[in-house]
Amino acid sequence: MKFSTKIERCELSPMRKYAPYADAAKARGMHIYPLNIGQPDIETPRAFFDAVASFTAPVLEYAPSDGVASYLEAVRDYYRRIGQTDLTTANLLATNGGSEALWLTMSCILDDGDEIIVPEPYYPNYSTFVTLAGGKVRPIPTTPEEGYHYAQRSKIEPLINEHTRAIMITNPGNPTGSVLTREEMKMLAGLAHEYGIFLVADEVYREFSYDGEQMASMLEFHDAAENVIVIDSVSKRFSACGARIGVVVSRNKDFLSEGMKVCQGRLCCPTLDQVGAAALYNEGPEYFAAVKEEYRRRRDTAYDMLMQIPGVVCRKPEGAFYLMAKLPVDSTDAFQIWMLEHFSASGDTVMITPGEGFYTTPGKGVDEARLAYVLKHDDLVRAMRVLAEGIDAYNHR
Amino acid sequence: MKFSTKIERCELSPMRKYAPYADAAKARGMHIYPLNIGQPDIETPRAFFDAVASFTAPVLEYAPSDGVASYLEAVRDYYRRIGQTDLTTANLLATNGGSEALWLTMSCILDDGDEIIVPEPYYPNYSTFVTLAGGKVRPIPTTPEEGYHYAQRSKIEPLINEHTRAIMITNPGNPTGSVLTREEMKMLAGLAHEYGIFLVADEVYREFSYDGEQMASMLEFHDAAENVIVIDSVSKRFSACGARIGVVVSRNKDFLSEGMKVCQGRLCCPTLDQVGAAALYNEGPEYFAAVKEEYRRRRDTAYDMLMQIPGVVCRKPEGAFYLMAKLPVDSTDAFQIWMLEHFSASGDTVMITPGEGFYTTPGKGVDEARLAYVLKHDDLVRAMRVLAEGIDAYNHR
Repeated sequence: MKFSTKIERCELSPMRKYAPYADAAKARGMHIYPLNIGQPDIETPRAFFDAVASFTAPVLEYAPSDGVASYLEAVRDYYRRIGQTDLTTANLLATNGGSEALWLTMSCILDDGDEIIVPEPYYPNYSTFVTLAGGKVRPIPTTPEEGYHYAQRSKIEPLINEHTRAIMITNPGNPTGSVLTREEMKMLAGLAHEYGIFLVADEVYREFSYDGEQMASMLEFHDAAENVIVIDSVSKRFSACGARIGVVVSRNKDFLSEGMKVCQGRLCCPTLDQVGAAALYNEGPEYFAAVKEEYRRRRDTAYDMLMQIPGVVCRKPEGAFYLMAKLPVDSTDAFQIWMLEHFSASGDTVMITPGEGFYTTPGKGVDEARLAYVLKHDDLVRAMRVLAEGIDAYNHR
Repeated sequence: MKFSTKIERCELSPMRKYAPYADAAKARGMHIYPLNIGQPDIETPRAFFDAVASFTAPVLEYAPSDGVASYLEAVRDYYRRIGQTDLTTANLLATNGGSEALWLTMSCILDDGDEIIVPEPYYPNYSTFVTLAGGKVRPIPTTPEEGYHYAQRSKIEPLINEHTRAIMITNPGNPTGSVLTREEMKMLAGLAHEYGIFLVADEVYREFSYDGEQMASMLEFHDAAENVIVIDSVSKRFSACGARIGVVVSRNKDFLSEGMKVCQGRLCCPTLDQVGAAALYNEGPEYFAAVKEEYRRRRDTAYDMLMQIPGVVCRKPEGAFYLMAKLPVDSTDAFQIWMLEHFSASGDTVMITPGEGFYTTPGKGVDEARLAYVLKHDDLVRAMRVLAEGIDAYNHR
C-alpha cells in the first residue's frame, strides 16, 4: 500500500529514540533527571481547573470554529495590555495548541516546492508541518560560538528566491534560548515587508526573556501588518501544556479567511479547555514576574554550571527555558546512549536532547545538545553535576 | 501575498452562509428551529465531568502523543466488546476528534494528484482534508430515489484507476442516514483488498442503526486487515462533541507508524478531555439502548412528517441522525434564505442544510437538503410542521 511521499519524508521525534534506553535504565533502578523535554514543572494556575469545574451546561457542545468568545476576548485583552490596542477577536483563530497554529499556517501559505526560511537549529516539528504542506525548510546557518544568533540581513537576504513564501522564527528561541533585539525584529519585519513574504513568529516563550529586553512581539511592526503571523499558546506561558490551547494572531484578513477554512474543517477546539484558558489570562503581572524570576534563576544556575565543564561552548541564552551548547564529546547521540546504558552517579543519570534533530543540514549538531531547565532548582543543580561527571567519565572510558 | 493553491481550493462551511440571515431573523424576534447542524441535544453523561473534576495533578502536562493510557485502554475494551478481540492499544492513535483522525489519515495516504473514491453526497469537511493533502475526491453518484445507496461493485469498480489510493465511506451515513448491509460491507472490504487500496471507514455513528442491522464495523473483515482504517469519536456516541476526542483504528502497522509522525508533530490531544472520554466508555448497554431508542423515535417522526409533504422524495434512512431528501422547491438554497427573510409561522421558522454543499459534482443537490433530527421530540414535531407550512407558502408566494 502506498503512503504519502510527504509523510514518508517526515521523521519521528528525535526524543523518542532514547525511550527504550531510558526504560531499560529505569528498570535497573536508575534515576533519570530529564533535561530533555520542555515540560515545565511550574504548577498550572488553579484558575484553569476552577473554571473547568464551574462549567455546568448539560451538553458538552461544539465550540465556535474560531474559538469560544470568552477565550478570544481574554487573548485580545492580553494583547491589548502588551500594546496591540487595535486587535479585535476577528484577528484571532483559536487552535489546538501552538502546534495546530503552525499546521494551519503552513497549510495556508505553502504549496509544493515552496520554501520557508528558518534559522537552524530549530524546533523539529516545524519540519513536519512544512513537509506535510509540500514545502521545504531553507535554513539560516548559525554557530554555537555566536550563540546561534541569526538576525543579520546579510545572512538572510541571499536565501530569498522566487520560491520563498515566508521567514519563520521562534522568539525567544527554542532550542537556542536566543532573544532578538528590537532592531533585529525591525529588520526581519522590514525584510518580510520588502519581499512580500510572510513572517511567521512563534512567540510562545514571549514572557521568558531575562536580560532586560522589553517583552516584544512582531505585531508591533505595523508596516509589516500584512506579513506578520504570530503563533501563540497557553502551554508554556501558564504551564498548561496538556490544555492544547493556542492561537494564531494576524492582521492579514485574507490569511484569516483562509485559516478559517481549516478551523471549520476540524470544527472546533475543545470547549472546556478554552474555558479554562480564558481564566488563565486573568493571571496578573505578579504571576508572570514570579515565574520569570524562577526560570531566570534556573537559567543562571544551569549556564554557570555548564560553563564549568571544560570544553563546553555556549553563549548565555537570553530567554525561553533552553540552553543549546557544544559539548566536549565526539557525539551527543553516542554520549546519551552511553549515559543511559553505562553511567551511574550514585544511581543517577541525565537525559538531554542530542543536537542533530534540530538541524536539517546533514552532519550539523553532532556534538551539540539542548538542555531544558524545567526542573526545580535543587534537582537542576544535581542534574548538572551528574552531567559534568558523565562527560568526564565518558571521555575517560 | 501568495496562499497555498490547496487552501484556495477549499471552501468555507456551507452552513456558514446562512448565519447572517439567521442573525437578522433572530434580531426581528423570530424563533428558529435548527435542523441544520449535527449537534445532539442529548445530555453528556455525568461520568465525563466527574472524571475531569477528579483530575488532581498540580501540573496539566502533555499527554503521550498516541493518547492517554486510560483512554486508549477504554477504547480497546469497547472494541473488544463489539468483537474485535485482537485489538490492542497499539492499534489506536488518539486524535482531536474524528476531524483530526480524518486529517491525519489523508495526510498519511494522499499525494498530489491522488484520488479517493467517496459516495456522493458526503460530509463536506472530507473535501477540506483531501484537498489539503493534495488529493481529489472521485464521487460515486447516487440518487435520492435510491435512498443514496451506493454499495454496488458495478458502480465503484469503474472509478478505480492508477491514481486511486482509497475508498472512504461513512457508515451509518452523514448526510444520508443510509446503513450498509453486511454483504455490502464485505464487498467494499473485498474491493479494497483486491485493488490494494485503503478503505477509510468513518464509523462515528456506529451505534445509531435503527432497523435490526447488527452494529457493525469494517474491522470485522480480517482479509482486509491491512486496508481498513476506522475513524471514530466520542462526539456523537456520547453527545460530547466539545471534548474533541476521537481515534484512528487500524491493523496496518506501517500506517500507524506514519500516523505517529503526525501525532508527535502536534504533540498530543488534550489531557483532561481524554480522561473524561475514558470514563464515557464505562457507559453500559442501557445507555446506548436509551439513546438509540430516542433517536429512532425521532427518525420515525421526522420521516413520517416529511413524507406527508407532497412532492418530497426520500427513502427511510436506517441510521445516524440525518434525513437527506429532495424537497419540492426549485432551490433549497433560495428556499432557506426565503424562510429566514420572509416566512413566519406564528413567529417560527426552521433552518435546514441545502444539499449542494454535500456534492462535488456541479449542479447536484440543488433541490435536496439535509435535516438533522437532534431536537427533542415535541420541538421536532413543531419544526417539521413549520417546514411543511414553509414549503407550501414558498411555492404559493
